[in-house]
This record gives sequence, C-alpha cells and structure tokens, in this order.
Amino acid sequence: MLEELKKKVYDANMLLPKYGLVTFTWGNVSGIDKERKYFVIKPSGIEYDSLTPDDMVVMDLEGNRVEGRYNPSSDTKTHLILYQNFENIGGIVHTHSPYATGFAQAGADIVCMGTTQCDYFCGDIPCVRHLTKEELDEDYELNTGKVIVETFRKRDINPEYIPGCICKSHGPFCWGEDANTAVHNAVVMEEVAKMNLFALTVNPNAAKAPQYLKDKHFLRKHGKNAYYGNQAEIR
Amino acid sequence: MLEELKKKVYDANMLLPKYGLVTFTWGNVSGIDKERKYFVIKPSGIEYDSLTPDDMVVMDLEGNRVEGRYNPSSDTKTHLILYQNFENIGGIVHTHSPYATGFAQAGADIVCMGTTQCDYFCGDIPCVRHLTKEELDEDYELNTGKVIVETFRKRDINPEYIPGCICKSHGPFCWGEDANTAVHNAVVMEEVAKMNLFALTVNPNAAKAPQYLKDKHFLRKHGKNAYYGNQAEIR
Amino acid sequence: MLEELKKKVYDANMLLPKYGLVTFTWGNVSGIDKERKYFVIKPSGIEYDSLTPDDMVVMDLEGNRVEGRYNPSSDTKTHLILYQNFENIGGIVHTHSPYATGFAQAGADIVCMGTTQCDYFCGDIPCVRHLTKEELDEDYELNTGKVIVETFRKRDINPEYIPGCICKSHGPFCWGEDANTAVHNAVVMEEVAKMNLFALTVNPNAAKAPQYLKDKHFLRKHGKNAYYGNQAEIR
Amino acid sequence: MLEELKKKVYDANMLLPKYGLVTFTWGNVSGIDKERKYFVIKPSGIEYDSLTPDDMVVMDLEGNRVEGRYNPSSDTKTHLILYQNFENIGGIVHTHSPYATGFAQAGADIVCMGTTQCDYFCGDIPCVRHLTKEELDEDYELNTGKVIVETFRKRDINPEYIPGCICKSHGPFCWGEDANTAVHNAVVMEEVAKMNLFALTVNPNAAKAPQYLKDKHFLRKHGKNAYYGNQAEIR
Repeated sequence: MLEELKKKVYDANMLLPKYGLVTFTWGNVSGIDKERKYFVIKPSGIEYDSLTPDDMVVMDLEGNRVEGRYNPSSDTKTHLILYQNFENIGGIVHTHSPYATGFAQAGADIVCMGTTQCDYFCGDIPCVRHLTKEELDEDYELNTGKVIVETFRKRDINPEYIPGCICKSHGPFCWGEDANTAVHNAVVMEEVAKMNLFALTVNPNAAKAPQYLKDKHFLRKHGKNAYYGNQAEIR
Repeated sequence: MLEELKKKVYDANMLLPKYGLVTFTWGNVSGIDKERKYFVIKPSGIEYDSLTPDDMVVMDLEGNRVEGRYNPSSDTKTHLILYQNFENIGGIVHTHSPYATGFAQAGADIVCMGTTQCDYFCGDIPCVRHLTKEELDEDYELNTGKVIVETFRKRDINPEYIPGCICKSHGPFCWGEDANTAVHNAVVMEEVAKMNLFALTVNPNAAKAPQYLKDKHFLRKHGKNAYYGNQAEIR
Repeated sequence: MLEELKKKVYDANMLLPKYGLVTFTWGNVSGIDKERKYFVIKPSGIEYDSLTPDDMVVMDLEGNRVEGRYNPSSDTKTHLILYQNFENIGGIVHTHSPYATGFAQAGADIVCMGTTQCDYFCGDIPCVRHLTKEELDEDYELNTGKVIVETFRKRDINPEYIPGCICKSHGPFCWGEDANTAVHNAVVMEEVAKMNLFALTVNPNAAKAPQYLKDKHFLRKHGKNAYYGNQAEIR
Repeated sequence: MLEELKKKVYDANMLLPKYGLVTFTWGNVSGIDKERKYFVIKPSGIEYDSLTPDDMVVMDLEGNRVEGRYNPSSDTKTHLILYQNFENIGGIVHTHSPYATGFAQAGADIVCMGTTQCDYFCGDIPCVRHLTKEELDEDYELNTGKVIVETFRKRDINPEYIPGCICKSHGPFCWGEDANTAVHNAVVMEEVAKMNLFALTVNPNAAKAPQYLKDKHFLRKHGKNAYYGNQAEIR
C-alpha cells in the first residue's frame, strides 16, 4: 500500500545525508497521505546506505503499525502528535544537524536576523522547553510532540508560517506541505543557524531584522501575491 | 540573440554551486553586453542542476524582458540600478554565502584586515543600510539598488576599487568587469569574511591592515604598474 | 594468525580518513581478540592510502610484538594499559580530531549538553590531567594510559558508560566493544564537541542537559530495556 | 635542466588544492637543488588546473630567472631571502590558508597549546611584524623575507625547529627539508591554527602545553632518539 508515498518518503530520507544533515542514523523523515489516514516513516536504526523504499513503515493515525517489517523510528510518536495537531502539514523531519542543535543546546531561539530566514520562516524559530521528569517518564516521544504543540499555541505561532522548532538540549524538528518540503526547511534552518552563529561571533548584539523586511521576504515567496521563483522540488 | 553572453552568464551562474556560495536557488548572476543595451540574467527559481544557457533571460536597460521563457530573477531590478549607475561594471552576482551574510546580519563592514582582501578590494567592504519601510513598500528590489549606489556615493567609494557590498540583514552583491570576475570577487568576499571572523575570534580587537600595505597589494594587481600574475579566467 | 581480527582492525582504521577524523597518520585503532590474549594495532607512521590488513601488528598483553613486519603505533602502550584495566572493551582508537582536540587544549570536559551525547556517553567526557614531568620521563605512553585509568577510577566513571576521554593538551581516546564501535564513538565525540562549541558560542552559559533526560536517552539505546533501533555496523 | 626538481616542486604545488590550502592562485611552492645554486618555483598567476611541471621557473640564488617561459611567483624574492639565510631548508611554501591567516590578521602567534603542534613545531609559531612604509616602498617581497629572518634571529628561534611563521595582516610561510615537507608543515600549521581557535572559543584563557610535553613530542619524532613512525612522503 501507499507505494508512491513510500518512494517519496524514502527519497526525502536520502536527502538527509546528501545535504549533510545527519551522521549515522540520526534523522528520520515521514510523510502523510492525502486522506490523513496513514503516514509513512523511516524504520529505526537502519543505515542510509542500505535503506530501500520497501523498508519504510506505514503507521495509522492512532499510532499502530499497519505495514512494514521493521520497527518505525523511535521518534514516531512525536511525528504522530504533530500530524494530529498541525492539520495542514504533510511531512516531518527530525535531525541532529550541528548548528541548529548548537542553538538547541544553548536554549536559544534562532531569531530572525536576515532575509535568508524570512524567505522560509516568518519570524523566530522557537526553542521548545524541556519536558518535566513526569512528562518524560510518562511517554518521552509522545510528550515531546505535545510540548512542541503547546509552544506554538502559547506563543501564538502559526506552524505553517514557522515550519519548525528546536527542542532544548535535543535538536530540530521541521515540517512542510510534504516530506520533500520538510527536508528543504531543515536545510534552511541549519543554514540560518550557521549564519546567525557567524553574526553573533562578529557582533554579540546582532539584532533581528526589521519586521517590515521580514514580512516582505516571506510574502514575496508565500501567499497569493508571491512573485519569487517557483519553488522547485529539491533533489 | 546574445548567445555568447548567455553562455558566459550561464557558466558564471554554474560557478556558484561549484564554489559553495549557494544553497538551493539562493543566488543569481548577470552580465551586460558591450553596448550596454541589454543584460542577461538567471531566471527566477530554477534549480542549478537543470539550468541551461537557453534559460537565461535577456533584459533591456529600461527593465523590460526582451527574450526568455522564464521570469528573470526576482532581484533583477537591483541589477538594473547597478548597471545604470556603475558605468564600468560588466557583471553582477548576488548570493547568501554564509560568512559574508553573517557580517550582513551583524550590520558590520568587512574591514580590510589583510592582504587577501587588499588584492581585490582596496579597503573596507561596506555594509549598506536597511531600506526604510517607505522605500521597501515603494519598490523593494529597485530601492535596494538605489541604497547601494547611495552608500558608495556618500562614503565616496569607487565601485571599481571596492567591487561589492553587503546589504544589512540580507547578504552580498558583488560585481566586476564581466560575470566571471563578479563571481570571482564573490568567492574572495566569502573567503575574507571567513578570515576576518577567525581573526575576531582570536582577537576581538584585531585591527585593519596599514593603509600603505593595502595600497601596495591592490596596486601590484591592478592598474598600469601591476606585476602580480595575469588574472586567468576562473573555472 | 588472527586474520579476521586484523581485517576488522584494518577496516576500522580506514574509517578514520572516511569520517574526517585524521590528517596524515595522526590516528590509530586497535582491537583485542576474544580470549584477551592478543591485540592487533595499526603500524607506526604508515599512510592510510598504502595500508593493508597484513600490515597490522599483533601484540600480546605483556606488550610484546608477536607478529608484524612494522613497529606498532607509538601509542601502543597506552592501548595496552587500557586493555589491561578496562576489562570489557574490545577496541580502542586515538585521533587528533580538531573539535575534540580543541576541548583537550582548552583543558575542559566535553560536558553533556544534549541528547546527541547522551545517546552514546552517559554523562560528561572527562579531560584527563597532564602527566607530571616524572611520569612523562619514566614512560610517556604507558603513563598516559595509567592517568586515563586513574581519572575514571577517581571520578568513579564507568568506562562502558563513558567510552572515551580527552587527554589535556593532546587529544581523544575512545573505546567500545570492538574496533568498529570504538571508531563510531570517536565520530560521536567529534560531533558533540562541535555542537558544544557552537552552543558555547551562542550562549557562554549554556548548561548541561537535565540528568533525567540524559538517563532516558542513554537507556533507550543501552541495557535490557533499550528500544532505539539496532546499532548497525558503520561503514 | 633540473627536471626531477621541477617535477617535485610541481607535485608539491598540486598538494595545495588537494589539502584545501589555496583558493584560486593564492599560493606557491619552491624547492632548491642540492648544491643550493638554483631553486625552482611556481610561475605567477597560473591556475592549478592548467599547471604542468614544464611551467616551473628556475631561478639562481642572485634572483635571476635562468629558465622558464613565465614570470616566477610575485613572492619569489621572499623565497630567495629565506634560502640565502636559512641554510638547511630545501623547500618553501606560501599560502593564504584561512585559519593561519586569521591568526596573522589577529597579529597573534600560534602558541603551542598541544601535541599536534609539538610534533612538528617545537614551540610557538611567530607572527612576524609589519614592514615599515620605507621597507615596503624599497622592496616589498625582498624585505618580507628579511623581516622573517630578523624575527627568527631576534627571538632566537631555530628555523629547523619552527619551520614556519605567519606575516602580520598577510599569511603563512612554511619550509622544510624539501618542497613536499614544506607543504606538509603548511597543512599542520593550518590544522593547529584551527585547533587553537577552537580551544580559545571554549576557553579564552587556554594555556600553552607544558615545556616538557612539547619537548617529548618533538623529540620522539625528530633527532637521533626519534621513535615515532617513519615520516612517509605525503600524496
């Protein structure tokens, strides 16, 4: 079942090593089908070198494995919660890419300092709080998803406008309209984390870009008045 | 029309991924013909992998597209203003290369700390101010060009001696006698931004190179008494 | 003798240049046989390009070369001491990988700031003290091993839970259940050293991850309740 | 004439792009013949891609070109002065490698913080002062050589023990017993500059390694009691 989606999710997973976002197996991508009944995710602990589309695992939206000979990624419940709560997203990716993870370990938002970020993230990328010990003991991966959702609600952030976050002391989760776009956003997040780190090295007081510049760049790429080049599928 | 120039501009665009200056489609190169009637520029939003010389777009100096099946780069009006105002330049490039963009986000000039920079930029590379909200609302890309020109005039900088700048919270624009040289200068700018960042990390008070050393290095490569090796075309 | 182990140790040595952990010959990997009678180690001063499995040197646990036409790595006695004292380790690696070596030169532990580290190292990676001049004059490489062992004993660190350390002003030693896992841990150490350096650049007061998060990540990969994906052999 | 030396110097020049030490043509390697009558050097301004052994230029020790269709590197007089004054060196290399150049721009010695440096440089790598305007106007490249020699004499540094320096606001010069070893030392200098920068980022007060550790590492590789692996030719 879902052969086409499995191939797309496989392809998106294989972009992680291509773009230098993962070491070993430290990453996973999923994608959801149009009816939002099933999602497809990378199996746990399989090397990218030996991965095939058939290895992908099919999950339903109650968290049951419905197809696949491997266990799904150990982060599957986090993906599940995000699909349940962020209704318009079609793909999710988790990595430990080093610059974004550096900000996660610093406990700092990746604030919007420049147009590179504005083109994809309409504002600051939030750093999501630690789980409490109780939340962690109850269900680590599930509550990781819940705390991400809580952060976007409490800070009144639209997950379609800010398609990603960093979990404190952990690393980034990104999403998008499909698995490919989610990975695209993860590449952007790593690149802007790098640029922000360089800016902070040059000037520890480097400031956010003005709001009107942020809006301009985001809106020339997104929404009905967008005029920035067609967003091609990345390869 | 302008088949030779389209090929040269195409070649110069393809140097951007080769030298690691772009992620995805975040860059564009243009070149102008000898009579300064037309310039050729990368189309908007096309992946470098699938780009061909025939995809290049021909623009006139009033900003009209005169040939090409795609829309020109969304930064085309910035290129236009620079060609209209900097009379001796033959090529322009815009990227979001990370070290130079780090300085742009820090709002800091890339000051001339060493001979690597002096060889190509006879002094500091200016950080160009933000557009006001009014300038941005009127015409973002056109006014970006105007503010670059304003900066060079106000600070009395010769754009042939300092072939580039960084726009605050945005990133670098470079130029040169042709498209190839413009990209060459963009590679240099990224490299010197990296060196300056390293110098500032080692010594936050790292100083500019003495003026006589800067002049020496620039003049051994440029002008009638130059004796530094022939500037070969980069590939 | 020990052809299979020699091949495995050779393969593990060849991962060092693959993962960018060594420049020139600045690294060496060893592995011990099941009876813990012999260990196999890289010869001294041989380029990775020209290394073959037959070049590996077989040593006994008294420090005698029992097979091999080359001298063993100059760090052989350090490996010997670690095998004698850390009973359950099966492979050891030494490199001068730059981020981990940066921490070694800073004289700082690589503290556990995030889950990337927790997945492999259940806590801080210790920075081992300088040898005294007397210890160095007596036997530099042998006493390097002894000071590593002393550090783990004094700080009550289980070498199976923290499979590596950095020697002050020198660089990292890592170990694991076999040569391949030791190299795997060395890749992780370099990656987390990089992430910590980035975190400290963003926030000089970046803190350790909470203990319960560290335990969770380590224990979901290690021990009888582990559920994180099978640890495949790296290639 | 000197076909074998030209080949060796050509090979050593080609290591510069291989080891990432140069951008464009920003580097040059020379080597001297056994009788110390002639030295062979890279021509000025020729791209590495198109370089051949026949392009190498032969100079005598009075600074006259005795063979070669191109002009020698513009830094030739600096090489000349070093060969005239440092009697036992057989090869010289100049680059603008970014980490070492960062220290040069910071005006800081690359102090000996760890064993990686000790293995090749028996102490701190000196940062050589600016030329005065008078020295520069008289003969920039020749006086660059003289100021390097002056620095080693004034600070009582043996150029065989510290086979390189960085010129303030400029970049590194390294040397060695032949052209290949000079490039080897330039790779090491870049690597230790990187490690020191990382150490200073983690701990701005990172200290020098103890003298006895430095001596130990240098002497286990150099001199009559050396026991560290044979120094193979790098490729």
